[in-house]
Amino acid sequence: MFHCYYKGEILPVSECRIPANDLGLFRGYGVFDYFRTYQKKPFQWDWYWKRFENSSEKLNLKIPIEKNDAREVVDRLIGLSPEDECAIRFILTGGTTINGTDAEDPTLIVFSEKIAEVSESTYQKGIKIESREYLRDMAEAKSTDYKFLLTIRPELAKNGSYDVLYHQNGEISELSRSNIFLVKDNVLITPSRNILKGITRRKVLEFAKEKYKIEERPVLFEELKNAEEVFTTSSTKKVLSITQIDNLIIGNGKPGPISQSLLSDFNAFTLSY
Amino acid sequence: MFHCYYKGEILPVSECRIPANDLGLFRGYGVFDYFRTYQKKPFQWDWYWKRFENSSEKLNLKIPIEKNDAREVVDRLIGLSPEDECAIRFILTGGTTINGTDAEDPTLIVFSEKIAEVSESTYQKGIKIESREYLRDMAEAKSTDYKFLLTIRPELAKNGSYDVLYHQNGEISELSRSNIFLVKDNVLITPSRNILKGITRRKVLEFAKEKYKIEERPVLFEELKNAEEVFTTSSTKKVLSITQIDNLIIGNGKPGPISQSLLSDFNAFTLSY
Repeated sequence: MFHCYYKGEILPVSECRIPANDLGLFRGYGVFDYFRTYQKKPFQWDWYWKRFENSSEKLNLKIPIEKNDAREVVDRLIGLSPEDECAIRFILTGGTTINGTDAEDPTLIVFSEKIAEVSESTYQKGIKIESREYLRDMAEAKSTDYKFLLTIRPELAKNGSYDVLYHQNGEISELSRSNIFLVKDNVLITPSRNILKGITRRKVLEFAKEKYKIEERPVLFEELKNAEEVFTTSSTKKVLSITQIDNLIIGNGKPGPISQSLLSDFNAFTLSY
Repeated sequence: MFHCYYKGEILPVSECRIPANDLGLFRGYGVFDYFRTYQKKPFQWDWYWKRFENSSEKLNLKIPIEKNDAREVVDRLIGLSPEDECAIRFILTGGTTINGTDAEDPTLIVFSEKIAEVSESTYQKGIKIESREYLRDMAEAKSTDYKFLLTIRPELAKNGSYDVLYHQNGEISELSRSNIFLVKDNVLITPSRNILKGITRRKVLEFAKEKYKIEERPVLFEELKNAEEVFTTSSTKKVLSITQIDNLIIGNGKPGPISQSLLSDFNAFTLSY
């Protein structure tokens, strides 16, 4: 069974209970971060910790643990994982409130979890997604706010859509939990603003800049029409081809060569991590 | 001590603990509603229940209790209240998740709470607030999302601001947890969109329409400059004068006659409720 850390203790996730009047639940006041292991080591730990610090700062939350101690917790949770590899989720909230808005100490919970792997056949086929006019609130912080996604999930499932692409005022931003890239004339184009800057996005940009021109900038919804390839990046999706957006078929409707090559590079990197 | 209801049981709030992987905390996926008692009776119960139903529907959450049974829970909590009058808060979340996004049954918690009364001297002086460019996400549902408010609260306190007024693209919407009205030439003007429609707002509109012309419509930030009075309405604030917004003094800087008269009407109504 998977374990978690709460108030200095490690316990099974199913036994971890928190006060009902935690501001994370009461007021949606929380940030998190999420990463996975490769070879039982937390992948890109320094980058993830830094991003967790950034998100916390943006929401004015103080992390109640030092980085080294947090790493020790992570290693203990990994050691207890029932599976070879696992995911780790930090959740930091405003803490337990007595009056509905104020709290003295923040709440930190560190979960270990089963990794939601993307199947081999999904990589081979690519995914169909749909678009929605929406902008994630405080998008540059990894807040716990996914109420819009959870609200529309049954509809996405009904439509056979794997995920949703957000856009507003003609500009695209990100998928519900991952970044987006377009390929056009050997150039990789990815939105620069109104997004949570993913760690996989960052890693892929590192690989890609050796081979392709990169444009990090505002990206219009319209540009999708002429994209030769579109793909999304995240810890669990790695580099996953998007072959259809609403009724628009991307390229020939199959994963393109650049997406596939970047997935190979990424996989090779994780294997030797 | 105040009590709450969770999973069919009534227990002290301080003893109520929920699974840490509840989607209300994990994913900020929740709605709530909040009302108070007068003469130990839940004020405007039918209106509040209807609004709770609306919010739940907008976030695609199913309320796991019938209205009559919910009322029975409310009455039991009121009976156990250590104070003559109390507030009741319903929180409904997506439920406990095993994979981070899906859950089988929603979570309902009903809290009884101490009422945060506004002091007599605050009513007499009116309040100073400040404005921020912000639009509450899914504003027409009473979601649990107050992360922006909680993030800026320390700054509001530092500035001596009682609350915050949200505006976007030149249009005002609402305060952090209450509605706004302007008075100009004996006309009451209040925003019609991008707001959570308050129950007190609705009641005040009922009183006011007997005496004044009402305009429910988009309201520009600029209009504040010429307003003779500005006030805010909510369950706990009732009708509370706003005498300063940022550096703008409203009228002569004191609560105006129409705000005061509407407060009297409202108080009279609650006394005989």
